[in-house]
Amino acid sequence: MSSFDLHAWTAEQLQLVEQALEKWVPLDAPADLGQAMRYAVLDGGKRLRPLLVLASLQACAPQRNVAWMHEAGLRAACAIELIHAYSLVHDDMPCMDNDVLRRGKPTVHVKYGEAGALLAGDALQTLAFELLTPPDSEIPFQVQAGLCSLLARGAGHAGMAGGQAIDLASVGTQLTLEQLRRMHLCKTGALLETSVVMGAVAAQASAQTTQALLSYGQALGVAFQVVDDILDVTADTAVLGKTAGKDADNHKPTYVSLLGLQAAQQEATRLAAQAQQALAHSGLTDTQVLQSLANWVLERKH
Amino acid sequence: MSSFDLHAWTAEQLQLVEQALEKWVPLDAPADLGQAMRYAVLDGGKRLRPLLVLASLQACAPQRNVAWMHEAGLRAACAIELIHAYSLVHDDMPCMDNDVLRRGKPTVHVKYGEAGALLAGDALQTLAFELLTPPDSEIPFQVQAGLCSLLARGAGHAGMAGGQAIDLASVGTQLTLEQLRRMHLCKTGALLETSVVMGAVAAQASAQTTQALLSYGQALGVAFQVVDDILDVTADTAVLGKTAGKDADNHKPTYVSLLGLQAAQQEATRLAAQAQQALAHSGLTDTQVLQSLANWVLERKH
Repeated sequence: MSSFDLHAWTAEQLQLVEQALEKWVPLDAPADLGQAMRYAVLDGGKRLRPLLVLASLQACAPQRNVAWMHEAGLRAACAIELIHAYSLVHDDMPCMDNDVLRRGKPTVHVKYGEAGALLAGDALQTLAFELLTPPDSEIPFQVQAGLCSLLARGAGHAGMAGGQAIDLASVGTQLTLEQLRRMHLCKTGALLETSVVMGAVAAQASAQTTQALLSYGQALGVAFQVVDDILDVTADTAVLGKTAGKDADNHKPTYVSLLGLQAAQQEATRLAAQAQQALAHSGLTDTQVLQSLANWVLERKH
Repeated sequence: MSSFDLHAWTAEQLQLVEQALEKWVPLDAPADLGQAMRYAVLDGGKRLRPLLVLASLQACAPQRNVAWMHEAGLRAACAIELIHAYSLVHDDMPCMDNDVLRRGKPTVHVKYGEAGALLAGDALQTLAFELLTPPDSEIPFQVQAGLCSLLARGAGHAGMAGGQAIDLASVGTQLTLEQLRRMHLCKTGALLETSVVMGAVAAQASAQTTQALLSYGQALGVAFQVVDDILDVTADTAVLGKTAGKDADNHKPTYVSLLGLQAAQQEATRLAAQAQQALAHSGLTDTQVLQSLANWVLERKH
């Protein structure tokens, strides 16, 4: 693993993802809807979810020797990024987190107004499902339907949206560690986990492999959120690209407020190790990208 | 057609739709997300879109002699109603139409707060795609993927959301009749048209039949909006179940403000006749429900 260059792999994959998003997020939507959608998605973000999709696809089908598989992976990668982007647009709105800065730029509602942000978020979510079901494609219908099913379940009331509802209800309250973990399993974890599983479904992986990757994604997802909470305390706004210290200001329960900084860091390390273990039990031989991504999640600075 | 009892047919279908929504819109989503979603969807609405799905399915497959077809139709019917419901929840929010009354009840943001309404709308949209892709179902993957594709295209930037963007940009401006028609083709028409085509796809109808039903749905969709504009002027709030006269108050361009009341009524009649003509050219023999629905759209009082 030490010889693997995650940076180079990431740069290569990101180019594909950015090109695809550039092509698929519409320029020509009416009024300024298209511009607002593109503003929310293009030119920004770590693209962790797309990278997880593509890393998982690569682990399951290293040769990608089926013609449609590359397209399916790229569509899945972009679709989940659109879901992530829509959730940020809506989260930032005044009635939610009221954030004015995201990825170092004014948030969508600052730039396009609240109604414009509401609509752009809505249309980004729809576009995700549009991308997964292209007319006249060679992607098998089973894969198309399977990807839609996963994405809807990861993003919906039992996944991301459910986690946001818990989050919203928890402001100013005291959560136990178990409740906090459940919230993040939904809010952030569900979509990260879904990314990994979508890669497996795009590769038509076996049930056993898919299950192992699901465990990897689950551990990675919570680790990501723990690190997010740590960075909210330790990083500054310029490096983070969004307003630091917001959680404490909003009296939001976090892993840091609940465990303290040091124990939160230990928890992140434990979860990342758990993710690596799941990979070791996956039966897959080509998991170095997924391993490196788990390390990156743990060690990231923003 | 004269002997056909639309009222009885509708009552029977609505019972199926209401039961299915009751079952599929979650009770157990975290915090009050599930309650807000159910409040937005259950016990209210004309259910025109589900009825169009089921009428179209019935016209294309009168016997419904394939086991999964009934389930596919019902899932499509509920999915499109969820999309419609989400759009109403978001439309009613203070940053959009700022409406406090819908179907005779306080709107979702009045009852659950703005953040709650935002999330509920988001999760309703996601749930629509979840309903269309059930795990372990006998619905062919081709039908599942086809329904997702149609719904995403009808609801997204080139359909409903696009129409809302035009609508938003047009407040206080002067539109030509052609621009107004384009707006409504997207805003309301796209989803009504999609309903009809989803029924055809659930029935695995031929391309020719699907095309004829698309024309029917398109004409019906604009007719519906013209009648909506007429009712905003002629009906009172109690009958309408929402605040009447809002369009004029908001200086929104409508068919009535552009054509005058009488010419708007003629336009609605012309469009309904166009819908009937499309049916006559569909090659289908069992179209009485679709015919009656077109008449109902023209003659409705709310």
